[in-house]
Amino acid sequence: MRAVPRSVRRAASPLLGALALAACTAPPADPLPAWDDGPAKQAIVAFVETVTRPGSGGFVPPAERIAVFDNDGTLWAEQPIYFQAVFAFDRVRAMAPDHPEWKRTQPFKAILEGDLEAALAGGEQALLEIVMATHAGMATDAFEGLVADWIATARHPRFDRPYRECVYQPMLELLGYLRANGFQTWIVSGGGIEFMRPWVEEVYGIPPQQVVGSSIRTRFELRDGEPVLVRLPEIDFIDDKEGKPVGIQRHIGRRPIAAFGNSDGDLAMLQWTAAGPGLSLAVYVHHTDAEREWAYDRASHVGRLAKGLDEAAARGWTVVDMTRDWKRVFPFDPR
Amino acid sequence: MRAVPRSVRRAASPLLGALALAACTAPPADPLPAWDDGPAKQAIVAFVETVTRPGSGGFVPPAERIAVFDNDGTLWAEQPIYFQAVFAFDRVRAMAPDHPEWKRTQPFKAILEGDLEAALAGGEQALLEIVMATHAGMATDAFEGLVADWIATARHPRFDRPYRECVYQPMLELLGYLRANGFQTWIVSGGGIEFMRPWVEEVYGIPPQQVVGSSIRTRFELRDGEPVLVRLPEIDFIDDKEGKPVGIQRHIGRRPIAAFGNSDGDLAMLQWTAAGPGLSLAVYVHHTDAEREWAYDRASHVGRLAKGLDEAAARGWTVVDMTRDWKRVFPFDPR
Repeated sequence: MRAVPRSVRRAASPLLGALALAACTAPPADPLPAWDDGPAKQAIVAFVETVTRPGSGGFVPPAERIAVFDNDGTLWAEQPIYFQAVFAFDRVRAMAPDHPEWKRTQPFKAILEGDLEAALAGGEQALLEIVMATHAGMATDAFEGLVADWIATARHPRFDRPYRECVYQPMLELLGYLRANGFQTWIVSGGGIEFMRPWVEEVYGIPPQQVVGSSIRTRFELRDGEPVLVRLPEIDFIDDKEGKPVGIQRHIGRRPIAAFGNSDGDLAMLQWTAAGPGLSLAVYVHHTDAEREWAYDRASHVGRLAKGLDEAAARGWTVVDMTRDWKRVFPFDPR
Repeated sequence: MRAVPRSVRRAASPLLGALALAACTAPPADPLPAWDDGPAKQAIVAFVETVTRPGSGGFVPPAERIAVFDNDGTLWAEQPIYFQAVFAFDRVRAMAPDHPEWKRTQPFKAILEGDLEAALAGGEQALLEIVMATHAGMATDAFEGLVADWIATARHPRFDRPYRECVYQPMLELLGYLRANGFQTWIVSGGGIEFMRPWVEEVYGIPPQQVVGSSIRTRFELRDGEPVLVRLPEIDFIDDKEGKPVGIQRHIGRRPIAAFGNSDGDLAMLQWTAAGPGLSLAVYVHHTDAEREWAYDRASHVGRLAKGLDEAAARGWTVVDMTRDWKRVFPFDPR
C-alpha cells in the first residue's frame, strides 16, 4: 500500500475512520443469498467451515476437497422430461428428411407425429435406438457443434426460457461458494458426457474435464490423413446408480467428501461419499415445489426418489426441501 | 509499494540505484536448467512464450492449455522392462504361498523361478494372466495400498535407486515450467491408471484426476452395508496407440495443445494434438544415451519408436536427443 502523505492523512481522518469502522463491522456478504437460513443451509455452511479450518479436527487439504453433483434435477430441472431427450427428439425431426423410413418405424414415427408418450412406450430399447440414431455416426467435433447450437436456441415450454436458464439459482451459488473454499466441483450425471461438456463451463463454471457422464464408444481414425474421433453406436458406460461410484473412480480416482443428488440414481454416489474415512456431506434435493418448479418423489418416472429418502432419514443426511429452503428457484425468478 | 520517506530515499539512492539496475539486467533464473540450449529447448520455450502472450496471434486462454505426457519412457525410464511388470512379478512372488498351483503353471512358474524371459514368452496372453492375477480381486483402496508400499521400497537393479527416482530431471522441470505458465499437465499412459495414481502427485505434481491410463472394470458393492469398489479381472480400456486420443477425449474432453511421447504407442496422441486448429507442440523423446540411460528405437521390444520417428521428420515435430539435449538425465545424476 502506498503511504498516505501526512497532510492528506490528517485532513481525511474522519472519513477514513468511518470507512475503517464500516469495514470491520459490516457482516461479510452472504455467499448463499437464495438459500433460507434453515437447517439445510446451516448444515452445508458448518461442513464447509469445518473442513477448511486448519486444526479443526475435520480439516481436509484443498487437493482432497472434491464435491460431486448430479445434473438432471440437481443442477437444472428435469421435467416434464429429461432435457437431453428433447435434444434427441429435436435431432430426429431435423434428420427426418434424410430418413424417409422413420415415417413408418417406431419410435421415430411417434416422435415425428409429436406423440412423445408413444415414443417412450418402447422403454429403454426405444430410448437406446433414439440415442444411437441421434448421438452417433459423426465426429466428436461435429456433435459438439450440434449440442452448442441446440443449447443456444431451444426453449423450455413451461417457462419459455432457454433450457440453460432452467438451472437452480441456489445451486449456482453453492458451486461458487464451494470453489471459493478450495473445492473442486464435478458433475457426475447419468446424462451424456458429451451432451454436457459444450455448455457446463459457461453455465456452471465447471470445465469439460470435470464432467463424468454416460458415453458411447469412439474410434480414432485417419480420414485423408486427418485424425478424427468417430462416435460409434455402442454404449461405453452408463453413469447411473451403481455406475456413479465407478465413474467417480474412473475419472477422479479419489473419493469425494461432498455429494449432491436428487434421485435414487444418486444413492450409490451418496453412499460412497458418506462412507469415506473423514467428515463428509451427503445432500438430497427434494422436489417439493409444484408452484415454482415441480413436486415429485416416490412415484415419479423421471427422477424417482424413494430408497434415497428412506436412507437419508436413516443416516441423517441433509434433505433440501425446495419450498422451504430455496428463496428463489431459477435465476429468472423475482428476487 | 510503500513510499520511501524522502530523507531515506536520498541517503540510500546509490545503493537503490545499483539494486534497480541489477534487477533490470540480471537474466531471470532458467526454468529448464537440465536442458541444453539447443533446438529442442528453443522450440519448447518459443511455443510456450507464444501461446501465453496476449495478442501474439497464437495466444491460447489458460483453460485450453492442456499438455499430455506419456509416462513409461517419457517421464520415467522403462528399461530393462516396464516398471509395472516388475511390480506384477513382485506381487506374484508375494502371493505365491496362497497359490501352490503356480509352481506348475506358466507364466507363474517362470516368474517364481526368476526366468523372466520364459515368463514373457507367452506374449500378451501371458501378460494378461499376470495382470489379472495380481491387479484384480481386491477393493480399490487395498490395491492403492499395495502400489504405495511397492513404490516406497522397490529399487531399480541398474541404479540401485527407488523406481520413483528413475524419473527424468528435464521432464520434471518441463512439467513445472508448463504449470507456471498456466498449463494443466496430464499423464496419458498405456500403464495402469490405478498403478500410477498413488504416487504421481508426489513425484510429478500431477493429481490423480489428471491421469489417463489402461484400466480393468470395477463394480460397486455393499459388503455388510459398507460400500466397496471391487476390481474385476476384465479389461475395461487399453490406453495405447489409437486408444490414447480416445482416452484423452473420455477424460479431458478437450484437444491438448502439447503432447510428449517416446514410442509408436504415442503416435496417435501426437497426431491428434498436432491436428488441432491452433498452434501445437508435438515432441518425441528419443532414447539415444546408452551411457547414462539406454539407447533404443526402431528395433526395441519395449518402447519401439519407428513410425513415430518417420512422422516426426516428415512433419517437423521436435525430437529430443537425450544425449545432446539433456545435461542431466536423472535427479541423482551429478550437476
